[in-house]
Amino acid sequence: MSLDDSQSKFETYVVIEFDSKCPHEIKSWLNNRLKTSAEFLTQFASNSKEEEVFLYIGATTKRLLKGAENVGIKKIYRNKTIRDFLLEDIENFENSTNLEDFLSQAEKLKVIEYELNNLKHDFEVMNFNEKFLINKYDGIINQLKKMDLILNVFPIHDKTELKRLESIWYKNIKSYGFFQYIPIDKIRNYFGESVAFYFRFFEFYTKAIYPYAFFGLVTWILPFSPFNRFMIFTIFNLIWNTVFLEIWKRTSNELSYSWGMFDLEFIDKPRAQFRGLPSINPITSKPELVYPKKNRRNKKYFVSYPIIILSILLAFFLMMIYYSIQNTVNLKFDNPESYMHTAFKMLPSIGYSIIVIPLNLIYKYIAIFLTDWENHRTQPSYESNLTTKLFVFYFANNFMTLFYEAFFDRNYENLSNLLVSMLIVNAVFNKLTEVFAPYLKKRIVKKIIDKRDGDDYEKQAYSLDKYEGLYSDYVTLFEQYGYITLFSSIFPWVAFAALVNNIMEQRSDAFKFCHVNQRPFPSNANGIGPWKIAFELLGIVSVMTNIALIALHPDVREYFKGFSDAEYICLFVLIEHGLIILKVIIMIVIPDESEAVANAKQRYKYESLEALKKERLARSMKIK
Amino acid sequence: MSLDDSQSKFETYVVIEFDSKCPHEIKSWLNNRLKTSAEFLTQFASNSKEEEVFLYIGATTKRLLKGAENVGIKKIYRNKTIRDFLLEDIENFENSTNLEDFLSQAEKLKVIEYELNNLKHDFEVMNFNEKFLINKYDGIINQLKKMDLILNVFPIHDKTELKRLESIWYKNIKSYGFFQYIPIDKIRNYFGESVAFYFRFFEFYTKAIYPYAFFGLVTWILPFSPFNRFMIFTIFNLIWNTVFLEIWKRTSNELSYSWGMFDLEFIDKPRAQFRGLPSINPITSKPELVYPKKNRRNKKYFVSYPIIILSILLAFFLMMIYYSIQNTVNLKFDNPESYMHTAFKMLPSIGYSIIVIPLNLIYKYIAIFLTDWENHRTQPSYESNLTTKLFVFYFANNFMTLFYEAFFDRNYENLSNLLVSMLIVNAVFNKLTEVFAPYLKKRIVKKIIDKRDGDDYEKQAYSLDKYEGLYSDYVTLFEQYGYITLFSSIFPWVAFAALVNNIMEQRSDAFKFCHVNQRPFPSNANGIGPWKIAFELLGIVSVMTNIALIALHPDVREYFKGFSDAEYICLFVLIEHGLIILKVIIMIVIPDESEAVANAKQRYKYESLEALKKERLARSMKIK
Repeated sequence: MSLDDSQSKFETYVVIEFDSKCPHEIKSWLNNRLKTSAEFLTQFASNSKEEEVFLYIGATTKRLLKGAENVGIKKIYRNKTIRDFLLEDIENFENSTNLEDFLSQAEKLKVIEYELNNLKHDFEVMNFNEKFLINKYDGIINQLKKMDLILNVFPIHDKTELKRLESIWYKNIKSYGFFQYIPIDKIRNYFGESVAFYFRFFEFYTKAIYPYAFFGLVTWILPFSPFNRFMIFTIFNLIWNTVFLEIWKRTSNELSYSWGMFDLEFIDKPRAQFRGLPSINPITSKPELVYPKKNRRNKKYFVSYPIIILSILLAFFLMMIYYSIQNTVNLKFDNPESYMHTAFKMLPSIGYSIIVIPLNLIYKYIAIFLTDWENHRTQPSYESNLTTKLFVFYFANNFMTLFYEAFFDRNYENLSNLLVSMLIVNAVFNKLTEVFAPYLKKRIVKKIIDKRDGDDYEKQAYSLDKYEGLYSDYVTLFEQYGYITLFSSIFPWVAFAALVNNIMEQRSDAFKFCHVNQRPFPSNANGIGPWKIAFELLGIVSVMTNIALIALHPDVREYFKGFSDAEYICLFVLIEHGLIILKVIIMIVIPDESEAVANAKQRYKYESLEALKKERLARSMKIK
Repeated sequence: MSLDDSQSKFETYVVIEFDSKCPHEIKSWLNNRLKTSAEFLTQFASNSKEEEVFLYIGATTKRLLKGAENVGIKKIYRNKTIRDFLLEDIENFENSTNLEDFLSQAEKLKVIEYELNNLKHDFEVMNFNEKFLINKYDGIINQLKKMDLILNVFPIHDKTELKRLESIWYKNIKSYGFFQYIPIDKIRNYFGESVAFYFRFFEFYTKAIYPYAFFGLVTWILPFSPFNRFMIFTIFNLIWNTVFLEIWKRTSNELSYSWGMFDLEFIDKPRAQFRGLPSINPITSKPELVYPKKNRRNKKYFVSYPIIILSILLAFFLMMIYYSIQNTVNLKFDNPESYMHTAFKMLPSIGYSIIVIPLNLIYKYIAIFLTDWENHRTQPSYESNLTTKLFVFYFANNFMTLFYEAFFDRNYENLSNLLVSMLIVNAVFNKLTEVFAPYLKKRIVKKIIDKRDGDDYEKQAYSLDKYEGLYSDYVTLFEQYGYITLFSSIFPWVAFAALVNNIMEQRSDAFKFCHVNQRPFPSNANGIGPWKIAFELLGIVSVMTNIALIALHPDVREYFKGFSDAEYICLFVLIEHGLIILKVIIMIVIPDESEAVANAKQRYKYESLEALKKERLARSMKIK
């Protein structure tokens, strides 16, 4: 094992951007800390005004390997199992001949992020007025961020690696084939598990739409009666979305295992923003900041959830008021030839739109505030709670109008138009705001910087949009899944539009991650988190909506004209219950884990338990 | 640590009963094997015909302690955590000063049963014609049982311990108080986890009925309109049965942890009847008989389940045929004063009863045959699969008639009568067949034996009824839970009858275990197994039945006379969906484990993982 420091040339992994008003002594003091106690390589760089506001951070291979143990990184062991990385044991891991490339890009960034977050007060090193650093349990960088002395900390792309990744990913024309898979391990090695899971899910979902769209087309063409056609498609829809999610769970568990994410609860480190009192972790017995789970649960059940429910009710009442005003106005100004009347009729919806947008924004801030306040220990738990809050509100808000049109107005033309317009807005609007506009901006900025500084990659990175997490990406998918599945019995063609859109969007999303946003810090994940539940819920709701849609369809009522209203409804209630039971049975029948993964996990657990026994045995022998 | 063999006097733990035609050489050969390779103490005893058909098995404390390690017994460690028992480390366990009483009765029996089951062919010891022992992977005792040379293997009671247990259990008048708990740890120490869980659950369930019966009474007395009364009680019923089961899960998880049952998958040994090919266990890497999970799954999904479904359909058609014949007969012979007519009217139900009883028996044998054939590795898994099969059929069969009366006949008086008679039959009939009759038999047999052999406890034990597992005990509870909860909105008084019955039945059940049946081999369990799901399912079904009952009630229809039929049904469908959502929310909100238990488990897992790391570290250091 050769870990000669001199081999490593300086390579920037992460950039710290200071505010220009940050005092020089703080900057140089932090620089010192990074060099001495964190043992990083550092280098200052200046902005266009010649202010030294950028601190580039690099690290030797040795430093990164040492850190990898702390971060709980798992690697493939010689017996092809996944084991915690141990520096002492490195020869027994695969690919340990070339130490430079032993850790992936994402793993290196995890090590650096962890050390940065854990840079704590160290009273012995303090040699200037540090009274502003009030909290000795809070990370230094987090405190400087709160004081606006540090504006941003972000990793930057590795140009060579990125080029290589792009060429086999979305720039490869072959990758558009149905039987082609995205280079998921490469994506994971570069962006980390959380982003990789998103792209894997997106791909999986898109491929699942093929049979769906095809089946929809077939049932539409074949000469079925409306009732039979709708029912066949509803049952197909039910089986499809259940099987789709169950197979996804298997895929996801397999990935999660092969990426060493199966015991996340021990790997994940506290977030930089996590607050707690110094205490003993009841599980690891290590000194740590601890925040009682009970407090968090109380906050959730007695404050957060009631607020969410109130918000949804508020949104619902607003919608009801809007519809009632609209109806009144429609009746009053019913002359279709009068421009005045048409204008008046538009007033309520304009008013509604104007009120709704800021309310949604306010809700978003409330959700973020509440999640911060709940004080989650790890990033995945924080994200999953924030996502749930945003999602519940989003779901209620977005589908409320669709439900209204479908079941109260029973206006199928309106519903159809609404679906189309939502799909198009979803597709076009997203691409414009998320990809094209920022990319244009980037090209322009690049030209300016190129002229001034030459080809300085780090500075271009600084000008990019900040990475905001995967929430909006998942929402886009979820929204589409909703349009496809909730009303599919009546509008099976929606799946086609979705399919075409997704084939393109997979690539534009990839492009966004590589060029439009700042590179994200890689984050652990053992799946798509709360979205799995969200998709599952939608699957159950879709059984109800589809059956309701069928029951309300005039052609179907005509088909059952021998039935009394009561019998007719009872029939559909029975069908609905039967289908939900069928769904649950399918969910139970398909195991969530393949036998191989289940065995591998059991084996790991078994070996640990045996090791614990041996340890105790050895200890008791020693005492004797 | 003193483990002097001479201290232990001979005490019979288990009796092997040979067939009288079993050749003497086999008996003495087995006796030899038990003494030499299993290191047990043994002693022959003869029956009334002076044939030596009983082999009493005992063991030294040292032998039992040595065996306890293999069986994966867990004990309380000095730091109050639960740890795998290690003989070398015994000083660090609590109560290790008195070695005689260190292992509980149940643990001792587990050790002996394990060794008996694992007595395999040992070609070196074979010294007579053993060609009959064809399968070298199958346990010897199991093979002798199959050949009917061994009739039974059963543990016998420890008179002193049993007396002590009885006196603080059902013989203690205080134990009948509401705030009194049964001595659950003592029961576990004597009968093992599986039986203890049954009694704990029975107690828990009985106590849960108190508020239920009380609330039912209150809503019945207060001057509500029928709709309000039914709805209030239905909602209460929903909350009650959800909360009841959720709290049970917590209680059960706590017990399971404190009894060291949390990693059953590694503790549980293969059943004696388990067949497989010698191979390497993929988890422990130990040589073992292995049977691929896939084969078992295929057998279940492609043979067992379809057969079950067919059986239920058959039973259903039989019932439908019965009802249609009954209706025809009722119409044809409608003279209430003619005895002939009355007699004719009874014919169909007599015929139905005659057909149903053997069919049920046949089904039971099919279920046992299928479960044997599925070849489950461990006893809990075998039992859980058998239970599921029996239960599903039972559920369908038993509640089918109730459903028919409730929803097709809509004959509330019939239904009410049916409920009462079922409850009474359930209570009285069970007690007669399960407790009183066998007890009488026991008293008589005791007298005969006493006269002949003096007070030979072991021989009395042999004459008792074989222990048949907990299936019928759980079914009795389940049945009652069904009567209470499925139709509770209309007949809340049923709970009172159940309450009175249970207070008595808890004691008669305890008596049954102590005196009526042969002592069961203690069996591991981490809860009530498949019954948890069965009770949960019933909770969901009860929402549907109650809402349907309310909707069908004439007084309620009258209350909503302003509604059209369609609106009326839609209203109840909405209510039903809303209530089921409420139920799911309650289930999610109440965590299945208390924080303490969750932490303790995590801690155990964490320590094991750390031990594994250390072990690897030590190994890699040693190599260097």
